[in-house]
Amino acid sequence: MTPTEAATTWLTAFDRALAAGDIEAAVELFADESYWRDLVTFTWNIATVEGHDGVRDLLRSCLASTGPGNWRLDGEATETDGVVEAWITFETEVARGNGHLRLVDGTCFTLLTAMTELKGHEEPSGDRRPMGVEHGADPERRSWLERRRAEAADLGYGTQPYCVIIGGGQGGIGLGARLRQLGVPTIIVERNERPGDSWRNRYKSLCLHDPVWYDHLPYLKFPDNWPVFSPKDKIGDWLEMYTTVMELNYWSSTECLGASYDEAAGEWTVEVVRHGPDGDPDRDEAVTLRPTQLVLATGMSGRPNVPEIPGADSFEGDIHHSSGHRDSAAYAGKRCIVLGSNNSAHDICAALWESGAAEVTMIQRSSTHIARSETLMELALGDLYSERAVASGVTTEMADMIFASIPYRIMHRFQIPVYEAMAEQDAEFYEALEKAGFLLDWGDDGSGLFMKYLRRGSGYYIDVGASQLVIDGKIKLRSGVNIERIEPNSVVLTDGSELPADLIVLATGYGSMNGWAAELISQEVADKVGKCWGLGSDTTKDPGPWEGEERNMWKPTKQDNLWFHGGNLHQSRHYSLYLALQLKARMEGIPTPVYGMGEVHHLS
Amino acid sequence: MTPTEAATTWLTAFDRALAAGDIEAAVELFADESYWRDLVTFTWNIATVEGHDGVRDLLRSCLASTGPGNWRLDGEATETDGVVEAWITFETEVARGNGHLRLVDGTCFTLLTAMTELKGHEEPSGDRRPMGVEHGADPERRSWLERRRAEAADLGYGTQPYCVIIGGGQGGIGLGARLRQLGVPTIIVERNERPGDSWRNRYKSLCLHDPVWYDHLPYLKFPDNWPVFSPKDKIGDWLEMYTTVMELNYWSSTECLGASYDEAAGEWTVEVVRHGPDGDPDRDEAVTLRPTQLVLATGMSGRPNVPEIPGADSFEGDIHHSSGHRDSAAYAGKRCIVLGSNNSAHDICAALWESGAAEVTMIQRSSTHIARSETLMELALGDLYSERAVASGVTTEMADMIFASIPYRIMHRFQIPVYEAMAEQDAEFYEALEKAGFLLDWGDDGSGLFMKYLRRGSGYYIDVGASQLVIDGKIKLRSGVNIERIEPNSVVLTDGSELPADLIVLATGYGSMNGWAAELISQEVADKVGKCWGLGSDTTKDPGPWEGEERNMWKPTKQDNLWFHGGNLHQSRHYSLYLALQLKARMEGIPTPVYGMGEVHHLS
Repeated sequence: MTPTEAATTWLTAFDRALAAGDIEAAVELFADESYWRDLVTFTWNIATVEGHDGVRDLLRSCLASTGPGNWRLDGEATETDGVVEAWITFETEVARGNGHLRLVDGTCFTLLTAMTELKGHEEPSGDRRPMGVEHGADPERRSWLERRRAEAADLGYGTQPYCVIIGGGQGGIGLGARLRQLGVPTIIVERNERPGDSWRNRYKSLCLHDPVWYDHLPYLKFPDNWPVFSPKDKIGDWLEMYTTVMELNYWSSTECLGASYDEAAGEWTVEVVRHGPDGDPDRDEAVTLRPTQLVLATGMSGRPNVPEIPGADSFEGDIHHSSGHRDSAAYAGKRCIVLGSNNSAHDICAALWESGAAEVTMIQRSSTHIARSETLMELALGDLYSERAVASGVTTEMADMIFASIPYRIMHRFQIPVYEAMAEQDAEFYEALEKAGFLLDWGDDGSGLFMKYLRRGSGYYIDVGASQLVIDGKIKLRSGVNIERIEPNSVVLTDGSELPADLIVLATGYGSMNGWAAELISQEVADKVGKCWGLGSDTTKDPGPWEGEERNMWKPTKQDNLWFHGGNLHQSRHYSLYLALQLKARMEGIPTPVYGMGEVHHLS
Repeated sequence: MTPTEAATTWLTAFDRALAAGDIEAAVELFADESYWRDLVTFTWNIATVEGHDGVRDLLRSCLASTGPGNWRLDGEATETDGVVEAWITFETEVARGNGHLRLVDGTCFTLLTAMTELKGHEEPSGDRRPMGVEHGADPERRSWLERRRAEAADLGYGTQPYCVIIGGGQGGIGLGARLRQLGVPTIIVERNERPGDSWRNRYKSLCLHDPVWYDHLPYLKFPDNWPVFSPKDKIGDWLEMYTTVMELNYWSSTECLGASYDEAAGEWTVEVVRHGPDGDPDRDEAVTLRPTQLVLATGMSGRPNVPEIPGADSFEGDIHHSSGHRDSAAYAGKRCIVLGSNNSAHDICAALWESGAAEVTMIQRSSTHIARSETLMELALGDLYSERAVASGVTTEMADMIFASIPYRIMHRFQIPVYEAMAEQDAEFYEALEKAGFLLDWGDDGSGLFMKYLRRGSGYYIDVGASQLVIDGKIKLRSGVNIERIEPNSVVLTDGSELPADLIVLATGYGSMNGWAAELISQEVADKVGKCWGLGSDTTKDPGPWEGEERNMWKPTKQDNLWFHGGNLHQSRHYSLYLALQLKARMEGIPTPVYGMGEVHHLS
């Protein structure tokens, strides 16, 4: 049997079982170890079920209301090491979907089902794109500009948006673009003056740590001459132009003061202040928005963790969180302490050293995973997101789906060998780092950087040069210690040593996104929805039990009509589709029975 | 023999003949009726030679200096109606090229050779894209923003640009983007305040008459949700963001006062004034630029033809050229006369009618070609530039090359049947127009709209609705007459009749681009280079003799280091590549012996 025949046989049997409502027959098509990941099509959730019990449970809850059918292979199936892989398409009563299938010995090992569009609500793209001009003559004609201006003036005043997104970084912007295409009236609220400022306002040497192929926004790809690692101001300009070109209703210089949900009315009250030009407070305008849906897209690294360190108030130099570190040049000749050893800590140490700081000391409290950027690109990303991948026909959309097709439960299995190869390839580098006293780790199970990101969103540095400064002693390192207290002109470490200091940067990371809900809505709502992010892998900073998916991200939460959106550019791009479809379905009154709403296990 | 074998056989023989310097053997590979169109590879010109004599002449002049080789088929050849077609690639000593071949009975009917890149000066794209971040630590590091700002502040002051482009519409912007990628220091001078204003400042109902697939700029395609016909303000926004994203040195609010060429120094002196914000003349800054190359990209429709009509000074209403017509709404209730019957005349008549003008009268002086937009898209553009073309794998780049592969000499042969089909398909429409008194034509030889555009750049309207207003008498029509004189409150036509008038719009077209050279440089230089545009087809407004290519466009002129760039978005996109490569080669000191500089036959 060819791979295509094998996949067709399976898909036909699956289709037949589902059409007949024969859940047990469908269950038998899955292997004992098997994973079905569904993005919104059956579950109206982002959920992965495991094994026969999981498949049975999902189908018992969802099959009748989903009405799936028209399952087809998309292209030819392939086979590698006994695993048959195939792209698929299918329909439900209300939507079209695509997905991916892996078979071992004719039974399903992994199945991914993902919604692409709602029937009758297809995006106006390609064959469906707008005409732009309306042919014929019409005395009531309004030009594109007139309509655009009228909409911008009316939305939030005369007409309430269906959705408000708090946070206009890449996450809010990408989601806003999808909602615009789906015809969901949306306002994006952003406190900065211009789209892209959340990048522009950071330290000057910052570049994206992920390469360009990984970073595309929806609809409009970076051109082929775009740098591999976008400089912060350049990505800022891109986001700004994207916001214009995609015709987003983007309220910049606008602060959200608070939000509350009226359960009875099914409506949020969102209080915002639109700041006047040049920050003139006399021109501030308070506006109350009343959307049905509220999305927090304030960044999974939005709310700084600021440790309380005794004596901080007495410090005579500058002290700030890494998120507030802008101008390293101001610290030329100064003695600088950076608390932390992840990405920002390394970047800021290097920027300070480059700017001629008299002394830069990194305080490493606990071990950190380091991956050299070149090696990471080559070994971890190259097959999916690279010039090589593009050349071999792996589009961004395909790469996203391939990535999504690997269940989180077993993803580490695929990651561990990558990092074993990395350790070997860069052995000298790691040896030198350890010799410099740096505390290295590879994640609890050796699965490296990406699993750390998915589990805890922290714990690593993608090396673009700072590690060599550590090795060379240009960035001084104090590892295995913390800051015990701060004196007016120094810090005292937990080992009793004292370091003179003019600057202290707290590169101490960020809290869970539900902290934003606490700040903007209430502690009660924050506790109700619980911790955001993390898989429940029972590894450091990602306590169990196993959740199967990122907690609360891009999917329904325990608070009606409250959503969290974020992640890196890849995740924002891909999962904004599923979040946008969930919002659109609700706006259109399409039934969206949610399967698999778990318990909240952690508050933050 | 398969098509691929036939093409391979021919190409091998051609390669062998050229490699051996056997010009006669190469000549024999061409049919008696044959055309070789070269875009910069052999000729350092844009030139088409015809038949054995033409091929022989080209090779005698260019073969030795070109050093072509490595001719290969690109993909499989195809055969339709006895014509074998193939894509090819090749190299010269200094460049790489691609092209297209048509064989009939094994001999060459058409050959297109086009430069894609200069060896050693490849664009930093794809595999060659910049890294963005410089890994490692460098105390001298300047961020992308710092470098960008330093360059913008220095260019034109501390450092002279190699090239100055006058005119920052889509033509200047697209060319500027290519030059930036090729590392040619360039300043674009634009009198408007913002990129895109040349569109924004026009009448409000204006949309592009060409569809989106035809209109892409280099490097960055419109997204799939872009309207078929871009509204003017939307394309304006796109051009503005493109200018930023492509990092162009764009001097907006800047007027060019004049330019002169120092033959001895090989350098232009270009006097410009950079206007201050809000037009405050105290903040005007005079700058003298000294580029080696000067490009006029002021638009092939840049300099208005304003007829002198007796009595115009006495007119008590408004009178302006169509290029200055912005706000039709101001003429609600007014009696409006529009002189002319091409695109702008129709658009403005419709806009005035829509705005509630009391009376709109079109004065049609001579016959006009009308093509309904839908039919034009379906019959004339659909195979190359449409969603259908995209779906069948015809990329924009392929479409451009297919279009370029058809020699101008015989292009009308392919066009005539298209317009015969159009006449038949829309017969009722044309009948109704004629019944309304409209004077129709299809071009001197029935070859329709696109040949009119290529030959004379005028003489047609792409109907998006105004023709129905003419048919219905909502736009009143006076055809076969002209305005004899203007009275304070009326116009008197050549048939003696008088029409009351509050507004007169002169939709009377534009002069040749060398008029801009007269205005900015000197009448002497304008006369030296002669008329721009037109093929010498010996049809109305395109006097012979035959030139083979558009006069003076995108190629060397009789004035050293003076170039003309323009055309519609398709032409600006495609031919900006060849103009940019010509400029880059000169900057790098690569020999560029120009073949086929013809005589100047017409001054304007």
